[in-house]
Amino acid sequence: MVVGAGFGGLAAARHLAHGPLEVVVVDRTNHHLFQPFLYQVATAILSPGEIVPPIRRIFRRQPNVTVMLAEVTDVDLPRREIQLCGADGARRQLGYDYLIVAAGARDSYFSHGEWARHAVPMKTLAQAVVLRDRILAAYERATEVTNPQQQRRWTTFVIVGGGPTGVELAGQLATLARQLHRDFHRIETERARIVLVEAAKQLLASFAEPLRDHARNKLIGMGVDVRLGSMAVNIDEDGIDVQAHQGATERIRAGTVIWAAGVQASPLGRLLGDASGAEVDRKGRVAVGPDCSLPGYPEVFAIGDMVDQHDLPGMAEPAMQEGAYVAKLIRARISGQPAPGPFHYRDLGTMATISPRDAIADVFGLRLSGLPAQLAWAVVHIAFLIGWGNRVGVLSRWAFDLVTRSRSERVILAGVSGADTR
Amino acid sequence: MVVGAGFGGLAAARHLAHGPLEVVVVDRTNHHLFQPFLYQVATAILSPGEIVPPIRRIFRRQPNVTVMLAEVTDVDLPRREIQLCGADGARRQLGYDYLIVAAGARDSYFSHGEWARHAVPMKTLAQAVVLRDRILAAYERATEVTNPQQQRRWTTFVIVGGGPTGVELAGQLATLARQLHRDFHRIETERARIVLVEAAKQLLASFAEPLRDHARNKLIGMGVDVRLGSMAVNIDEDGIDVQAHQGATERIRAGTVIWAAGVQASPLGRLLGDASGAEVDRKGRVAVGPDCSLPGYPEVFAIGDMVDQHDLPGMAEPAMQEGAYVAKLIRARISGQPAPGPFHYRDLGTMATISPRDAIADVFGLRLSGLPAQLAWAVVHIAFLIGWGNRVGVLSRWAFDLVTRSRSERVILAGVSGADTR
Repeated sequence: MVVGAGFGGLAAARHLAHGPLEVVVVDRTNHHLFQPFLYQVATAILSPGEIVPPIRRIFRRQPNVTVMLAEVTDVDLPRREIQLCGADGARRQLGYDYLIVAAGARDSYFSHGEWARHAVPMKTLAQAVVLRDRILAAYERATEVTNPQQQRRWTTFVIVGGGPTGVELAGQLATLARQLHRDFHRIETERARIVLVEAAKQLLASFAEPLRDHARNKLIGMGVDVRLGSMAVNIDEDGIDVQAHQGATERIRAGTVIWAAGVQASPLGRLLGDASGAEVDRKGRVAVGPDCSLPGYPEVFAIGDMVDQHDLPGMAEPAMQEGAYVAKLIRARISGQPAPGPFHYRDLGTMATISPRDAIADVFGLRLSGLPAQLAWAVVHIAFLIGWGNRVGVLSRWAFDLVTRSRSERVILAGVSGADTR
Repeated sequence: MVVGAGFGGLAAARHLAHGPLEVVVVDRTNHHLFQPFLYQVATAILSPGEIVPPIRRIFRRQPNVTVMLAEVTDVDLPRREIQLCGADGARRQLGYDYLIVAAGARDSYFSHGEWARHAVPMKTLAQAVVLRDRILAAYERATEVTNPQQQRRWTTFVIVGGGPTGVELAGQLATLARQLHRDFHRIETERARIVLVEAAKQLLASFAEPLRDHARNKLIGMGVDVRLGSMAVNIDEDGIDVQAHQGATERIRAGTVIWAAGVQASPLGRLLGDASGAEVDRKGRVAVGPDCSLPGYPEVFAIGDMVDQHDLPGMAEPAMQEGAYVAKLIRARISGQPAPGPFHYRDLGTMATISPRDAIADVFGLRLSGLPAQLAWAVVHIAFLIGWGNRVGVLSRWAFDLVTRSRSERVILAGVSGADTR
C-alpha cells in the first residue's frame, strides 16, 4: 500500500510493480504532479495537463497496481489498517501488509493562518491555476483604475521566500511583465514591480555562494527588487509590511502577494508520530529509523518531504531515492534475501532557473550558470517528466514561447469576479 | 464600442480596426472562446488555453483598440452610455458614438432552473472544465463502489439535446470510454453507457436527412443509446426521467447528466428590448432591423446569438457575417459614403464531427460524410482558430492522440471533493 503519488510514492510503486505483490496507490488527486514545473503553469507557459500525468496511465501496463482516488484520514498501526475517505465522502477501512506513506508537504503560514487569505500559495496544481488567474487579472485591474497609485499597486507583485520556487517565480514574473507589454496599450506592464522578500541573508541557501551571487545579480539585472534579511510581518488585502533586519517596517502596497516561504509536512506525519510514538518536529515531519521505517512498526515506512531523518532538502531526488530503497527492502524481505543496509542519500546536486536563458546548477561538483546551466536544467527535467506526450508538449511550448517571446496559456478561468463559472 | 468578444464582436472589432475610430472591446473574460472546440476540452483532448486566445493578443497590433475586462450591467440609449462593472466590483459609465452588442447566448433550463444543479451545461470555458472534472471523476467513483448497480450508475452518461454539441459530445464520450479501458484495471470502462436524449424525431435538425441518418447510425454503431422523440421530464442527483413520445416514463440512473439542449440570449437582449421598445422573443433574443440596428437607435446594433432577426442558426458564421456587415455600415456612415443594403446571410453550410475519424458536412451544396467530412471539418476549424500557436498546438494534440489513442489533458482539478483547492 502506497499513500501519495508524488516523487517518493511513485518511485516506490514503480519499483514494486511487476513483482509478486499487490500494490495499491492512494492519492487525493488523479495525477502525479511534476512540482518543478508548477511555476511555469502559474506564469502561463505550460497547460496544467502537461505537468500532471494521470496516475492510472503511469501504471497502465502494471496489472498488479491498483489506483485509488481517496484521502487517508486515519491509520491503525496495530491492526494494519488505513481509513480512506473517497470522493463520495464515504469512509472505508483497507488492510495492508506493508505501508509506505509519502504524503509530502503543503504550504504553511507558520502562526499566521490569516495570511492565507491574501498571500497565494503554490504547492498544488489547483493553487497554481488560482495564482495564474490572480497574476493575469492584476494586469487587467491595473488598466481599469485611473489613480496612478492604484495602478502601481496592481502592477506590484511581492514574493515571500527566496528558495528555488521564489527565485524561479520572480524571474518568470519579470519576463512576463516585459512580454505583456505588447498586448497592453494603456499601461506599461514592463514597469511592473517584482519584489522578492527573503528572511535570510541570502537567496537559495542550498546552493554554493558563487551561484547564489549569480542568481541575485541576475534577478537585480532583470529589475527584481531583492530584499534580503527581510521579514514579512503583516500581509493584508492591501499589501505587505516588510521589516528589514532590526530595522524599520516598510509598507509595500501590492495587488498580488505570493507565498513561497514555508511548508509543513502532511498531517499524516503527525498522525504517524502519534500512533507510533515517533518524534514529530515543528514542521510536522515524523522521525523514522535508518531504514525509513517507524519505530516498532518495521512494516510501515515514511519517506519524502514529510520525514525528518536525514535533514535532506525538500526535493524530488531524496524522495525518489527513498522510495526506491524502501521498495528494494520490501522485496528483499518477501523473498527472504538479506535486507539492504541503512538508507544513504546520493547527492546529485541541485538546479534552478532564473530567466528563459539563464539558470544555475550545482551537479556532480560542477558549478554551472548561464546557458549551460539552463540546458542542463532542461535536459534533466524533461527526462524526469513522465510520458513522451508531455515531454514533446513541454518542449514544443518552450520552443514556441522562445521564438515568439509569448505565452500560450493566458486564460483567466474565473472571468469577472467568477461571473461565468456558476 | 463593442460588447462581447465572441465570433460576432470580434469580427466587428477587427473590421473597425486600423480605421479612424477608437474601438473599445468589453468582455467578461480575458479571452475569445472558440466554442466549436469546447467539447474537446470537456473530453480531455485539448487544454483550455489552446482554444481561448487572449483578446488583448488578438488586437496587439491595433493601437486604436482598447480591451476592457468588465460586465455590462445597464445601457442608457438616449444618453448613449453603458454601465460597466469591473473586476473590482466598481461600476462606471462609458459613453459611445456607436454601440455593437454581441453578448451571445448562455445555457437555459427553460422553466426547470432546479435542473442546473444536476445537469452540467457547456457554454463557457469554465463550465467545460467543470464538466471534464465530472466525467473523469465519474470513472474514479465507479472504481470505488462495489455494488454493481452503483457502478453502472457512475459509468452512465446522459446527454440531453441532439444538436451538434450533443452529438459531438456523445461521439467523444464513447471514444473516451474505449480509450480509458487500458488505464482502469478494476472496471470495464468500454462498457460505459452513453445515452443521447433528443425531443425531436431526429438528431441535428439543421442538416440534410442523409447526413442526419449517417450520424445516427454511426453513433448507434459506436454503442450510443440514441433516444429520439424523448423528453427529459425530471433531473435529480440520482439520474434522469425520460419520457418517450406520449409513452411511459423511464428512469435512467446516471452519475453524469450533461445539458446540451437549450440556450437563451444574454440578459442584454431583454435589456436592449426594454430600452428601445424592440420585441424580445421567449429565448430573450431582441428583434433588430434589416441593418441589425435597434428601432429608433440607428447607432446601436445587436448581432449574433442574442438577436432574432433572420432566424439564423446559433453558430459562428452568421455572427461573423453580421459583425463584418455592421462594421462596414459604420465606416460608410462616418466617411459619408452610401450605406450598404440590408444584411443578407450567405449560407456557407454546417459541419459536425461524430468520432475521431468520422464527421458530416453540408457545404456549398456538397454533402460529405466519413473521412472527407472530417478532413473538411478540421481544415475549416483550424483556419478559423485564432493564432498560429493555437493552430500548431491543436494539430499536434490531435496527431498525438490519434497515434497513441489517448488523451493529453486528463487532469481532475478539483481533486477529492475539492480537498486540495483550498
